[in-house]
Amino acid sequence: MSSERILSSLLRDRVVSAEAAAALIQPGETVAMSGFTGSGYPKAVPLALARRIDDAHVAGEAFRIRLMTGASTAPELDGALAQADGIALRMPFQTDPDARQRINAGTLDYIDIHLSHVAQHVWFGFYGEIDTAVIEVSGIREDGSLIPSTSVGNNKTWLDLAKKVIIEVNDWQPDGIDGMHDVYYGTALPPHRKPIPLVQADDRIGETSLRCDPDKVVAVVRTHGPDRNSPFAAVDDTSKRIAGHLIEFLKHEVRMGRLPENLLPLQSGVGNIPNAVLAGLAESGFRDLSAFTEVIQDGMLDMLRDGVLRVASCTGFALSPAANEEFKRNIAFYRERIIMRTQEISNHPELVRRLGCIAMNGMIEADLYGNVNSTHVMGSRIMNGIGGSGDFARNSFLSIFLSPSTAKNGSISALVPMVSHVDHTEHDVSIIVTEHGLADLRGLPPRHRARQILDHCVDPSYRAQLEDYFDRASRVSYGKHTPHLLPEALSWHQRWLDTGTMLG
Amino acid sequence: MSSERILSSLLRDRVVSAEAAAALIQPGETVAMSGFTGSGYPKAVPLALARRIDDAHVAGEAFRIRLMTGASTAPELDGALAQADGIALRMPFQTDPDARQRINAGTLDYIDIHLSHVAQHVWFGFYGEIDTAVIEVSGIREDGSLIPSTSVGNNKTWLDLAKKVIIEVNDWQPDGIDGMHDVYYGTALPPHRKPIPLVQADDRIGETSLRCDPDKVVAVVRTHGPDRNSPFAAVDDTSKRIAGHLIEFLKHEVRMGRLPENLLPLQSGVGNIPNAVLAGLAESGFRDLSAFTEVIQDGMLDMLRDGVLRVASCTGFALSPAANEEFKRNIAFYRERIIMRTQEISNHPELVRRLGCIAMNGMIEADLYGNVNSTHVMGSRIMNGIGGSGDFARNSFLSIFLSPSTAKNGSISALVPMVSHVDHTEHDVSIIVTEHGLADLRGLPPRHRARQILDHCVDPSYRAQLEDYFDRASRVSYGKHTPHLLPEALSWHQRWLDTGTMLG
Ligand SMILES: CC(C)(COP(=O)(O)OP(=O)(O)OC[C@H]1O[C@@H](n2cnc3c(N)ncnc32)[C@H](O)[C@@H]1OP(=O)(O)O)[C@@H](O)C(=O)NCCC(=O)NCCS
Ligand SMILES: CC(C)(COP(=O)(O)OP(=O)(O)OC[C@H]1O[C@@H](n2cnc3c(N)ncnc32)[C@H](O)[C@@H]1OP(=O)(O)O)[C@@H](O)C(=O)NCCC(=O)NCCS
Repeated sequence: MSSERILSSLLRDRVVSAEAAAALIQPGETVAMSGFTGSGYPKAVPLALARRIDDAHVAGEAFRIRLMTGASTAPELDGALAQADGIALRMPFQTDPDARQRINAGTLDYIDIHLSHVAQHVWFGFYGEIDTAVIEVSGIREDGSLIPSTSVGNNKTWLDLAKKVIIEVNDWQPDGIDGMHDVYYGTALPPHRKPIPLVQADDRIGETSLRCDPDKVVAVVRTHGPDRNSPFAAVDDTSKRIAGHLIEFLKHEVRMGRLPENLLPLQSGVGNIPNAVLAGLAESGFRDLSAFTEVIQDGMLDMLRDGVLRVASCTGFALSPAANEEFKRNIAFYRERIIMRTQEISNHPELVRRLGCIAMNGMIEADLYGNVNSTHVMGSRIMNGIGGSGDFARNSFLSIFLSPSTAKNGSISALVPMVSHVDHTEHDVSIIVTEHGLADLRGLPPRHRARQILDHCVDPSYRAQLEDYFDRASRVSYGKHTPHLLPEALSWHQRWLDTGTMLG
Repeated sequence: MSSERILSSLLRDRVVSAEAAAALIQPGETVAMSGFTGSGYPKAVPLALARRIDDAHVAGEAFRIRLMTGASTAPELDGALAQADGIALRMPFQTDPDARQRINAGTLDYIDIHLSHVAQHVWFGFYGEIDTAVIEVSGIREDGSLIPSTSVGNNKTWLDLAKKVIIEVNDWQPDGIDGMHDVYYGTALPPHRKPIPLVQADDRIGETSLRCDPDKVVAVVRTHGPDRNSPFAAVDDTSKRIAGHLIEFLKHEVRMGRLPENLLPLQSGVGNIPNAVLAGLAESGFRDLSAFTEVIQDGMLDMLRDGVLRVASCTGFALSPAANEEFKRNIAFYRERIIMRTQEISNHPELVRRLGCIAMNGMIEADLYGNVNSTHVMGSRIMNGIGGSGDFARNSFLSIFLSPSTAKNGSISALVPMVSHVDHTEHDVSIIVTEHGLADLRGLPPRHRARQILDHCVDPSYRAQLEDYFDRASRVSYGKHTPHLLPEALSWHQRWLDTGTMLG
C-alpha cells in the first residue's frame, strides 16, 4: 500500500474490515452506492454483503436490499448481489448479465430513469429514505472531506441524504486525481433554485472534494482494486462506415455554417461504435474540440493526448487496461483537461441545452418515423436502460443515434415499421446513422422522415419489406399523418420470436 | 376606431389594405405568423391571402405556402388557408378541423414539435429561411417597436429572422395591455448562451415591446377583430371527479411535506378538464399560488381575480367571451399580475426545471406502464400535436396527465395495453388521473405501475380485459420487465377500427 490516503485521524479510527462494514447493512435497507459505467464503485463491501446475504439465505432468512448507484457498476457489485438474489429493487441503470437475467425473469424489480432525474427525484422524496451510502473515494482530507475516485455520479446526494455512510478508500486509484473533480453545491429544491453558472464545458463551479458529515460515517474500509476495465473491440468495418457517414455530415454542417469549425461540445455514449466515431474524429482534421459527456472512454483519452480535444467534462470513465495505464502515467496532463462532475450536472437539461451539445448514442432500433428504442428487446426484455441518452437527445443541438442496420447475424433489422418500445420520440431524434448511410430528419414531416430512413439506413435485405409496409400503410392507414397498419406494426418482432428471423 | 395606435409616422405611411399586404406574399414562401391558442393571430391578411390563393387555383396556378406560427390559431387563419388548399407544410401546432382533415388525408404535411424547440431549431437553420412574417400587435410605438397583443409566441424570432414583415395593428385588443409583456432578448446560439436570469414565475427579465427593423416592414394593416373566443363547457361530473382526485393528492403531498403550502408554479393545458381542475383549486383553500404556463384560460383569470393566484406567467390566452370582457374591463388589475413571455421562455426546459412546475395536461391514452399518447388517435391520425406538453412533462416537479377513462361513449378505453403512439415515455410521467382515481407512478418499476393504473384509473367496463392482458403477459412475455404480448398489444385499437368498440 502506498502513502497514507486517510488524513483525518477521526476517520482513520473508523477503519474496519469489509465484513464488519457489510454487517452494518440490514435486510430491507435502501443502499446507495457509488459507481458509474464500471468506474469508482466500491470494490469490497458489496462482495462482503453478498456473502452475508448468501449466508442468510442458506439459513432460511430473507435478505434483500433496494440498490441505487450512479449508473452501471461491475461484477463485484451488481453481479455479486444479483447472484446472491440480494437485490429487491434496482435503479437507475445497470448493464450486468446476471441482474439483467433476473429483471427479465421478473424476480428483480428495476426502475429505468433519466440519469438527470435521479438525484432530484430522490431529494423530492419519491424514493423514500436512504439508509446507507457506500462510497468509494481515492482519499480523505484532514478535515474529513472526501476526494472522489474515478466517478462522481450521485455521490454528493448519497452522502447528503444517507443516514449512515460507509467509505471505501481505494489506493489503486491514482492519488494524482485530486483536483480533477468539481462538485457543485449550488443545487436546491424548488422554489429555491438558481441558475447554474456554467457556460463552457471547462468552467469550474464547485469544490474538488465531497463534503461528508463525519458523525454519519460508520465504517471506513481500505481497498486496493482496479475498476472494471474491458478492452474495446478493434474498430470493425461496420463501425468505421458509421463513423465515416457521421463525420462527413459534421463537416458538411460546418461548411453550411450551421456548426462552428470546432463543432459544439460532444456527448458520446459508451460502446464500440461511439469509440469508432471518436477515433474517426481524431483523424479528420478537427481541432480544439470539447466534450460535455457522461463518460470518458479510450477514444476521448486519445483525442485529449493528441490535442484534438481541448477539454472534456464527465462524471466517470470506461477505459481499457491500456488506456488506464496511460491515464495514470500522465495524470497531471489529464488533470488539466478533464473535469469530473456530479451526474446531476453532467446530464443537466439546463446545461446540455445551453452548451448545445452534439449527442451521439447507440440504440436498439428505430422506426420509419424516427422513434427510437434504446432499452427493450422485442418490447419487453430490458437490455440496459435509458441512462443519460434522453437528457442529451432532448436538449442537444443535434440528437444523433448510431447503430448497425441489423443485429444477431442479420436476423433482426434495427429499422422496423414501429419500435416495440419508445425511449426517444420522433420529436427528439434528428439524425440516424447506420453503415449504409445517414438519415437527416431535421425539419421533416413523418412521411418524409420515412423516406430518409428507407433511402439511407435500412439494410438491403429488409428494404423491400419495409418499403412494402410503408406503401401499404400510406394507402390504407386510418390516418395518413403517420401511416401504420396496426396488425402488422409489431409483426416483425413477433416473427423473430416465433421463427428466429424478422425476414418475412 | 379608437385613438391612434400607430405612433411611428414612418410605419403609419406604410398602412395598406389587407389585400395589398397579402399580394406581397409569393407562392412557395415560408410565412411565419403570430398566434397562440387562438389569441393574437393576424385577422385580415391570412383571409386576404386565402382569397388570393383561391383565385390562383381557379386560374390553374399553383399557390401554397409553408406556414409557421406560435401554436394553434383560428378559422380565419388555419381554417381559411387550409380550405383554400394553400398550406404545403404546417408547423408547429394546430387544432383546426379543416387542417386536421387534410393532414390525416395525407394532403397537408405537418411537423409536430416541442414548442420549446421551435424558435431554436429555426435559428439553427433546420427549417430554411423565413420569407415573410405576419404579426398582430396592439400598437406601434414612436420608435417603431411593437406592442404585442394577446400572444407573444414566436413573434420575436419571426421578426428577427424574416426577410419582410407585415404588421397587423388590431385596435380591438385592449390598449391597456401595454406593459404586460416581457420579451427576453438575452438568447443566443451555442456556444454563446448564458443562464436565463429568471428564478420566480413573476420575474421580469426583458422588454415590454418587440424590436423590429423598420426597413423590413413592407406593409401595415389596420384591423378590428376579436380573438377566437369559445365558451367553456359547464364543468361536468367526470371533470369534477378528476379534479377532486388531483386536489386531494396535492393536499396530501403538502401534508407529507413534499410540496409547499402554496404549491409550486402551475402549468395547465387548455381544455375543459384543466379548467375544472383550476375551478376546483380555487375552492380548495389554497392561497398565494403562482402559474408558469403557456396559456391563461378562464379558470386562471378567476383565480387571479379572487386572489387565489398571485401571479401568472404565460405566452397567450384562451378566454371565453365573458372572461374576455372581464379581462378588458379590469386590465390594469391583470397587468400587475400577468406576465406574457415569448414561448421559448414560457416553455424553456431550464426554467420549467428550475421552478419545479406542477404540469397538468390532457392525453389521448396511456398504457399499463404509463407511456402517454397526446397526439395520435389509433396510432396514425393526428388530433392536435404535442404542443408544450413534453417541455413540461419532462422537466416539471410533477408530471400529471388527466383524462376521462373512456372516449366516444365508452367505445374507447383511454387506458390500453400499449399506446398506439408515444409522446411521453414511462420516464416522463409521474401521475395519471381519471374520474375513477389517481395512479401515483413515482418511484415504481413497470409492473407496479401497471397495478396502480389497473386499480385506480381504468373504467370498470375495461378492467377485466386489461387485467387479463396483464396477467397473461406477465406469465408468457418474452421479457418480464415490461410484459407484453405483441400480437395483442395494439389489438384493442384495431378492434375499434374494425367493429367500433374496443370491448372484446
Ligand atoms: C442500445 C445499446 C444497448 C446498444 O449497444 P452498443 O454496444 O452500442 O451496440 P451493439 O450493437 O454492440 O449492441 C449491444 C447488444 O444489443 C444487441 N442488439 C442491438 N440491437 C438489437 C436489436 N434491434 N434487437 C435485439 N438485440 C439488439 C446486440 O446484438 C448486442 O447483443 P450482445 O450483447 O448479445 O452481443 C446501448 O447503446 C445502450 O445501452 N443504450 C442506452 C443507454 C445509453 O444510450 N447511454 C448513453 C449515454 S451513457
Ligand atoms: C389530448 C387532447 C386532445 C385531449 O383534449 P381534451 O380537450 O383535454 O379532452 P377531450 O376528452 O375533450 O378530448 C378531445 C377529443 O379527443 C377525443 N379523444 C380523447 N381521447 C381519445 C382516445 N383515447 N381515442 C380517440 N379519441 C379520443 C375526444 O373524444 C374528443 O373528440 P371530439 O373533439 O371529437 O369530441 C389535448 O389535451 C391535446 O391536444 N393535448 C396535446 C397538447 C397539449 O398537451 N398541450 C398542453 C400544453 S398547451
